[in-house]
Amino acid sequence: MLNIENSFFLQHWEIVVISVSIVYFILKLRDNQKSSAVETNQQQVNDEETIDNDAKDGEVDTGDDELSPSLEVVNHIPYRGASVVLKGGVDEFYNMVNNRRSIRMISNKPVDIEIVKKCIHAAGTSPSGAHTEPWTFCLIKSADVKKQIREIIEAEEYMNYKQRMSKQWTADLKPLRTNHIKEYLTEAPYLILVFKQAFGFKANGERKTHYYNEISTSIAVGILLSALQSAGLSSLTTTPLNCGPALRSLLNRPQNEKLLVLLPVGYPTDNCEVPDLKRKGLDEIMEIY
Amino acid sequence: MLNIENSFFLQHWEIVVISVSIVYFILKLRDNQKSSAVETNQQQVNDEETIDNDAKDGEVDTGDDELSPSLEVVNHIPYRGASVVLKGGVDEFYNMVNNRRSIRMISNKPVDIEIVKKCIHAAGTSPSGAHTEPWTFCLIKSADVKKQIREIIEAEEYMNYKQRMSKQWTADLKPLRTNHIKEYLTEAPYLILVFKQAFGFKANGERKTHYYNEISTSIAVGILLSALQSAGLSSLTTTPLNCGPALRSLLNRPQNEKLLVLLPVGYPTDNCEVPDLKRKGLDEIMEIY
Repeated sequence: MLNIENSFFLQHWEIVVISVSIVYFILKLRDNQKSSAVETNQQQVNDEETIDNDAKDGEVDTGDDELSPSLEVVNHIPYRGASVVLKGGVDEFYNMVNNRRSIRMISNKPVDIEIVKKCIHAAGTSPSGAHTEPWTFCLIKSADVKKQIREIIEAEEYMNYKQRMSKQWTADLKPLRTNHIKEYLTEAPYLILVFKQAFGFKANGERKTHYYNEISTSIAVGILLSALQSAGLSSLTTTPLNCGPALRSLLNRPQNEKLLVLLPVGYPTDNCEVPDLKRKGLDEIMEIY
Repeated sequence: MLNIENSFFLQHWEIVVISVSIVYFILKLRDNQKSSAVETNQQQVNDEETIDNDAKDGEVDTGDDELSPSLEVVNHIPYRGASVVLKGGVDEFYNMVNNRRSIRMISNKPVDIEIVKKCIHAAGTSPSGAHTEPWTFCLIKSADVKKQIREIIEAEEYMNYKQRMSKQWTADLKPLRTNHIKEYLTEAPYLILVFKQAFGFKANGERKTHYYNEISTSIAVGILLSALQSAGLSSLTTTPLNCGPALRSLLNRPQNEKLLVLLPVGYPTDNCEVPDLKRKGLDEIMEIY
């Protein structure tokens, strides 16, 4: 067989060349069609993406307690509803969160670490799919670790600004006065790196699916931001471009954790400015049925 | 050219068959390799997933204002930091959110709609990638719409419990006392369906990427939950399994919106019970560096 084939190919090399070209162009075409839907960082996020997709495709209740085959179920107890509320009700809460702004100019004025810890503790009251509590908050106070984090992020950001992003993107960013230099990463008294846990482990060591780990952890971040504001602290919600694996490795986090967001925490500098942005009105974000 | 090629192919059909087979098997092999990373519900979620993947692969600052080529940039103004805080600081905030529980037994006791609206308004203060504010809150007060929502969800949930999920899953759920019957969907005075906007539109009608729309909208849900608690209201964070498209269609939402979560809002029934779950301690969710 092999001899016959070889002789065919040798005798009729023109056809071989044409066929190979056809294969090449078909493959190229298909690659282009698919590339937009396929991950580029495949090896790194494979586990997580599979699980995220599971959760997205099949949607389920994500109360504090639902849907976990591995959840140890306990007694049910009466609950009479929210009893600890704000004196000024939701008006007080609205005024508080509406006063929050993301800042990029953070001073090195010290912050009581106990306050930041309490904010993280508050974030941990968030609901999660099947009560898996799929989050890890890494609180960075070490100047040396902050320095290393800044080096990792600035090196990546330099490439983002200089090479990876389009000129249009870079130009459009200019008025926002951002660049690859992130002083706040070493100036801010604390950084909080929030990791989502793509999966966990049962008591018997088996792998446990963390349904909706991204939604759950993001909800916890919303509570964290409100907590920081309640304490008079400011922050900035960032998702450092392409830095997840290097930061995970720096902090020696396990494979099931993936960086979701990084927040510097502190007080604004004396000359801090923010863009004069407006928020959408209620009628622009709400529909009543 | 065509004639020459045709004659080659006709004369040497064996080579053509072999070549076509090779193409077929290479394509088949590549399909199999890629299928694990590719969405199954492609047609429905294509736009959103592409954008979500963009955002996940390339990570960027998601402050209130960063990274949007389409963001109209305005003046920068001084910001002196959080000035509206809680009197009791983060201790007060922690006690409030720690008092929050997800409930499934919701009474039909009326709730002032203005309070619910204010909670949604508070959620709208959330930061978002490039200040795109990629969320729509559908507030349902109509008994008829609630009834239709319940019918859609219960029909899907019936299939989830009876057919789609494993027996183990169904068995494990039993102690949580949940089933496909969702009374709270018609009993609760209000439902809030939170949609994430996979993309938006610029002033000139061009499509605008909504970076991190899922993370941003989930953060807003965290603020919404805190707002509801501040007002003494209770809720349940649900993501109704497989119901997104039907609910979007029922509410006549546009194609760029995808249901993220559904929250019934109200007060617990007099006999409301919740599982006696504990939350992880601070040392279980936080690492200090």
